[in-house]
Amino acid sequence: MIDKLFLREKLKEFLIEDIGVGDITTDSLDIDRTVESVIIAKEKGVIAGVDFAVEVFKILDPNILVVFKRDDGDYVNEGDTVLKIKGSGSSILKGERVALNLLQRLSGIATNTKKYVERISDLKTKLLDTRKTTPGFRAFEKYAVKVGGGSNHRFALYDMVMIKDNHISLSGGIKKAVERVKEKVSPMVKIEVEVSSIDQVKEILDLDIDIVMLDNMSVDGIKESLNLIDGKFLTEASGNITLENIREVALTGVNFISSGSVIHSSRWLDLSLRII
Amino acid sequence: MIDKLFLREKLKEFLIEDIGVGDITTDSLDIDRTVESVIIAKEKGVIAGVDFAVEVFKILDPNILVVFKRDDGDYVNEGDTVLKIKGSGSSILKGERVALNLLQRLSGIATNTKKYVERISDLKTKLLDTRKTTPGFRAFEKYAVKVGGGSNHRFALYDMVMIKDNHISLSGGIKKAVERVKEKVSPMVKIEVEVSSIDQVKEILDLDIDIVMLDNMSVDGIKESLNLIDGKFLTEASGNITLENIREVALTGVNFISSGSVIHSSRWLDLSLRII
Amino acid sequence: MIDKLFLREKLKEFLIEDIGVGDITTDSLDIDRTVESVIIAKEKGVIAGVDFAVEVFKILDPNILVVFKRDDGDYVNEGDTVLKIKGSGSSILKGERVALNLLQRLSGIATNTKKYVERISDLKTKLLDTRKTTPGFRAFEKYAVKVGGGSNHRFALYDMVMIKDNHISLSGGIKKAVERVKEKVSPMVKIEVEVSSIDQVKEILDLDIDIVMLDNMSVDGIKESLNLIDGKFLTEASGNITLENIREVALTGVNFISSGSVIHSSRWLDLSLRII
Amino acid sequence: MIDKLFLREKLKEFLIEDIGVGDITTDSLDIDRTVESVIIAKEKGVIAGVDFAVEVFKILDPNILVVFKRDDGDYVNEGDTVLKIKGSGSSILKGERVALNLLQRLSGIATNTKKYVERISDLKTKLLDTRKTTPGFRAFEKYAVKVGGGSNHRFALYDMVMIKDNHISLSGGIKKAVERVKEKVSPMVKIEVEVSSIDQVKEILDLDIDIVMLDNMSVDGIKESLNLIDGKFLTEASGNITLENIREVALTGVNFISSGSVIHSSRWLDLSLRII
Amino acid sequence: MIDKLFLREKLKEFLIEDIGVGDITTDSLDIDRTVESVIIAKEKGVIAGVDFAVEVFKILDPNILVVFKRDDGDYVNEGDTVLKIKGSGSSILKGERVALNLLQRLSGIATNTKKYVERISDLKTKLLDTRKTTPGFRAFEKYAVKVGGGSNHRFALYDMVMIKDNHISLSGGIKKAVERVKEKVSPMVKIEVEVSSIDQVKEILDLDIDIVMLDNMSVDGIKESLNLIDGKFLTEASGNITLENIREVALTGVNFISSGSVIHSSRWLDLSLRII
Amino acid sequence: MIDKLFLREKLKEFLIEDIGVGDITTDSLDIDRTVESVIIAKEKGVIAGVDFAVEVFKILDPNILVVFKRDDGDYVNEGDTVLKIKGSGSSILKGERVALNLLQRLSGIATNTKKYVERISDLKTKLLDTRKTTPGFRAFEKYAVKVGGGSNHRFALYDMVMIKDNHISLSGGIKKAVERVKEKVSPMVKIEVEVSSIDQVKEILDLDIDIVMLDNMSVDGIKESLNLIDGKFLTEASGNITLENIREVALTGVNFISSGSVIHSSRWLDLSLRII
Repeated sequence: MIDKLFLREKLKEFLIEDIGVGDITTDSLDIDRTVESVIIAKEKGVIAGVDFAVEVFKILDPNILVVFKRDDGDYVNEGDTVLKIKGSGSSILKGERVALNLLQRLSGIATNTKKYVERISDLKTKLLDTRKTTPGFRAFEKYAVKVGGGSNHRFALYDMVMIKDNHISLSGGIKKAVERVKEKVSPMVKIEVEVSSIDQVKEILDLDIDIVMLDNMSVDGIKESLNLIDGKFLTEASGNITLENIREVALTGVNFISSGSVIHSSRWLDLSLRII
Repeated sequence: MIDKLFLREKLKEFLIEDIGVGDITTDSLDIDRTVESVIIAKEKGVIAGVDFAVEVFKILDPNILVVFKRDDGDYVNEGDTVLKIKGSGSSILKGERVALNLLQRLSGIATNTKKYVERISDLKTKLLDTRKTTPGFRAFEKYAVKVGGGSNHRFALYDMVMIKDNHISLSGGIKKAVERVKEKVSPMVKIEVEVSSIDQVKEILDLDIDIVMLDNMSVDGIKESLNLIDGKFLTEASGNITLENIREVALTGVNFISSGSVIHSSRWLDLSLRII
Repeated sequence: MIDKLFLREKLKEFLIEDIGVGDITTDSLDIDRTVESVIIAKEKGVIAGVDFAVEVFKILDPNILVVFKRDDGDYVNEGDTVLKIKGSGSSILKGERVALNLLQRLSGIATNTKKYVERISDLKTKLLDTRKTTPGFRAFEKYAVKVGGGSNHRFALYDMVMIKDNHISLSGGIKKAVERVKEKVSPMVKIEVEVSSIDQVKEILDLDIDIVMLDNMSVDGIKESLNLIDGKFLTEASGNITLENIREVALTGVNFISSGSVIHSSRWLDLSLRII
Repeated sequence: MIDKLFLREKLKEFLIEDIGVGDITTDSLDIDRTVESVIIAKEKGVIAGVDFAVEVFKILDPNILVVFKRDDGDYVNEGDTVLKIKGSGSSILKGERVALNLLQRLSGIATNTKKYVERISDLKTKLLDTRKTTPGFRAFEKYAVKVGGGSNHRFALYDMVMIKDNHISLSGGIKKAVERVKEKVSPMVKIEVEVSSIDQVKEILDLDIDIVMLDNMSVDGIKESLNLIDGKFLTEASGNITLENIREVALTGVNFISSGSVIHSSRWLDLSLRII
Repeated sequence: MIDKLFLREKLKEFLIEDIGVGDITTDSLDIDRTVESVIIAKEKGVIAGVDFAVEVFKILDPNILVVFKRDDGDYVNEGDTVLKIKGSGSSILKGERVALNLLQRLSGIATNTKKYVERISDLKTKLLDTRKTTPGFRAFEKYAVKVGGGSNHRFALYDMVMIKDNHISLSGGIKKAVERVKEKVSPMVKIEVEVSSIDQVKEILDLDIDIVMLDNMSVDGIKESLNLIDGKFLTEASGNITLENIREVALTGVNFISSGSVIHSSRWLDLSLRII
Repeated sequence: MIDKLFLREKLKEFLIEDIGVGDITTDSLDIDRTVESVIIAKEKGVIAGVDFAVEVFKILDPNILVVFKRDDGDYVNEGDTVLKIKGSGSSILKGERVALNLLQRLSGIATNTKKYVERISDLKTKLLDTRKTTPGFRAFEKYAVKVGGGSNHRFALYDMVMIKDNHISLSGGIKKAVERVKEKVSPMVKIEVEVSSIDQVKEILDLDIDIVMLDNMSVDGIKESLNLIDGKFLTEASGNITLENIREVALTGVNFISSGSVIHSSRWLDLSLRII
């Protein structure tokens, strides 16, 4: 779901960050002959980013051949082959680190997301990510959340309205803020309002919005809010979601649970590349 | 240590990723009046990236005023103010997420690095990072390692030679690889060779290189290697370094310990921004 | 509603298209002294883009002074002053064409849009633009539609789902297409389906979508469709909307009328710049 | 006449404007199988931009196959096929809007230009465009003028000298301006001076310039000017040229007639794409 | 005559080439206090590029102060101060090399050009440069030629027609080539044809072109050609022009003499920067 | 040793500088048929940049065929063929100037470097370049030095520490500067200190640095310095190195001699392209 044109520009940028004017080690060694190489999982997890890794190598050597690859979303165990390619030795060595950095980071996020998703997979509540992403790398991190079974919240400030506490306080109240926004914004865009108390929930009941974010509320608070809202809006619970409490929150019947930590608290999945 | 010219290009790229054609929420609300805002620590840790956050806001509003700021490297406790600025409300709301994403990610890395460094701070061994970094974001992550008390390994493939296992196997042996590299590479660049066995250590003793990386060796293997090397080269231990074993490894007297996980296993430090 | 960071990058690109390595006429004439200059309307219309024009001149001369300006959305008559600035003569002459090209194109669109909007301003139906815009210039043209009183449809392929005839035929039917999309797409994004017959309207009545586009239907077809839909979805009429028929279409009670021609059939508003 | 290197950079920019991180509709539908598609004229006109449209699709899918295409400059009637291609369904749907936006805008300009040119095609006077073009899109619009039978005036501020009224007034007269310019400018560049009265025509008769622009003069004024100039310079008539008066102006024997409206008052030619 | 917008983009690119992520020496030394620094001539010559050097420092430190500067085109002697600035120590050290590289290269070209120009300064013949320039650096090198008293030939392939031997041989003769070009090219652009024999000169006498380049002809050949051409076209002599023969060639009365070596055989003027 | 990704971006930039929107001569002539063309040496020298020239043509025409080419580093004599290619006539004519500008400049540097290197080829001293390079073109010029048998000094301010006179004076002495730098800089980077007197040499003897640059010292001064340093550091002699004195300096036993003039005082090698 990342467009190839956008993808290639980004991957080139990533390769130039690492290679710059030249890989002085590999370039000195004249190792252009064709070799085979595998990326192996060194622990179990959910794989994400395989096609991005392939594209990294293809940018360096258009003749690279994919011998075998796992699909994004596949579970792998320690020792499993994730990707097997054939191509010029120097291109594989130059691209190794960027390809692995992508694969390890994205597989780490997918693996982490999957753990949250599995806790609530029998319920109708969906897990969402947030905009808490590494600067410049958002499209990749949000892609990995989807591979792990989560859904994406808005991508950026331009594709959905989210009226948060600071917006409200600077605008003289929720109602004024919503009205002013509706006047100016494209009707094709959804509008979400963040509330953090039952009083605020009551304030929004008559507004024409799409989604309510219940921010940092207790499970009881969420339940009470859902009762008041009564299906009038979609609902999202947010704040301090953990593997431990996610099921309890989902059982309230809230439509969405959003969590920044599925991305920002992931650690990398251990993978390595070997010339064979 | 990140140059301002480079910095500003990157920060603009980060802001455009999030704002694009426009922040449709904030832009609809006409909240350009001057407000004060604080970034508060919600847990304890080491702060990194304060000046980058300031620059983010300055790009959006050159008249932003820094009322108070902590220095990078400072410890903060829960509730401490990290940064207090004054400026147009809409600029602060537009820049909030990018500024926090930077600060939280970098402070997380600095905090994590600090833990490793503290274990060996009385020893001469230095902690190094690696090239296992988020694509496109390396300069920032390596900067945070330094804030946390670590040192930087090479930045990229262009500024130092590192002859790794795959290079060696494709070049017909360590000696051949080193000779070929020395013939071609600038004499102003250091040369490191990765070895993973005592036999390989013996093979390199006569070579004219700068640093030896002892990859995935046991503490005993490292000791034996250091004995053999006997100060002829700088030495670096790498592979599976944890908070638990780092001191034991350092006690061997190795010059450097490198760890990818100081960066890639960090989680974000919890910070939040509030308009006051 | 166009962010300043995005705006400045675009304006620099526009200036470089026209100036390149240098304005060989103006640069030869050494006319850097401060002068006053006005942009005058040579016909009546709705003004759009004044702040963009000012920014063009500010990029060339940060000390430019705005003496007087009309607001975007203002009506002007022949002879009215739109903008009066003071600054270095050579900067004004270098920026003149780009500033006027922006102002004339955008004011032309705003003026044209206004004519359509006025026909239906007492009704609840809103006028929308489309993605039929000049390549590379969409943000500006869509901005002008808003200045003229219209609303913006989706900005691009990334911020809303629109399932059109070709999507449907390649996916084996409307229902399949909607289901597949809903599985993959962020729940924060609205979904619109294009239909062109009463039969297709019937096919979608049970689907969970947000908006239905009634493409190229007669007024009677629209009425029948609205009856069937009965408020279940938002509705949009599209295709061959003219000044003559827009009111009749709006009187059906459809929520939106979209028209590519508000942008692509606009001609420029006549404006000129004079040094005084 | 637009270089392919320049062209591809521009088309990528146009595609990224529309697709960004991804076409969320098409990408969700998995419609990568090979299909055939046609672009059909829905009204008569002169076609321009066919090869640009082809290149748009080739950027998205290098294996796209052109089955049939009309040449730029061809007349088409309602119902005529303009372009028939074969390729992956999703690439065609993603590129459709950008390809059509290019083709419709450029064919509109070519069609409009042709109408002017036909009025004077038996005379020696040539029709020229101006720098009144959509910012960022000039090369394409000027190309379309040529397809329609017109000629291009200077491309930008860097490739020809044009001394206009504001230059003259800020330089202390025509003669001074011309002298100063000739001292500084490359001798390989043509010099044109704008005059708007018979008195000014007399002032320039002794100057060493290439072209005189007679700005906003009556037909009689043009005739008198041509008599005075008597073949010493090339001559250009400009200002308020319409389909109605262009022949009368051309009959004066002026070398060039320039018109901004051939570009900025064109409306798009109606074309549509269909998967077959 | 290099536009500031274009200039700043180029200078930033040059600075990033040298500084990249950071100047690791200067950044480590914390030397931000204000200092004064001078650029001194270490040999005599013609200075070019002073304002570019100033702009380099201003990009790094907007508060840099110019205490004294020579104008481009000034003669300097050994020991003369070229530029004296005041600003942050670290900005001056970071910008030093780029500023000097610009100044030394451009002053070298201006000095070299001046020597050629002085040989013919009493004659009407003008010295022109060529497109034999360092890739990516043309605008600067051509600027330096003008500072040294030369004139610029066409800037690039887009701003003038030059029909050379290879064009002629691939087009089936001079006449055919000229006709085809005149049909397609903007009438605002000058047309030059390269000839290398008296026979070719005769072939062009009836063509409607602007300039004839007499390529690699003897002085006698040039004289005979000028007789034949008899003022019908401007004339340019080219090929193997040296300081020794330039006057003899100019005495033929040819309008232009073009020389690649004024640029590509220049050596740098010796300059150095000192903190005082 | 210039990476292909970096190379292609640069070559595209160079081509766009020359071609821009289009090569108006070649594009008008419709000469796309396949032709053969040779680049011929018109004087003797060392060739550098052949593969870059080939890449220039491949960017314009991916089907270009290399019929024959010399390797970089080869000696050529007057009349020798350097490169013979087959491809579309218009692509060869469009790329000719950029390809030749690269080849001539780089071959000139390689030829010049070779002369210096030959004077000391039997000695252990190596010739180094400096950062005195044409802005934007450094990677190419440094590459040519290597082709000519020289070695590269640091590439830029980011890949090695060089503490120069100005750094020292602003830091309160050599020792302080070295200490501060070592505290902050990556241990993977070499440190060089510039000294210009025997006293300064004595000052550094106890410091932990890698290389000493002996700046502008007499041969006797260099000898005395080498005696004092006694192999503790690598040594570099710099300043006013000429073909006449380089051997005498090298005979002192200094490790490196650096010279800016191998690059900045080179003139182009004479080469030309012919369609055959």
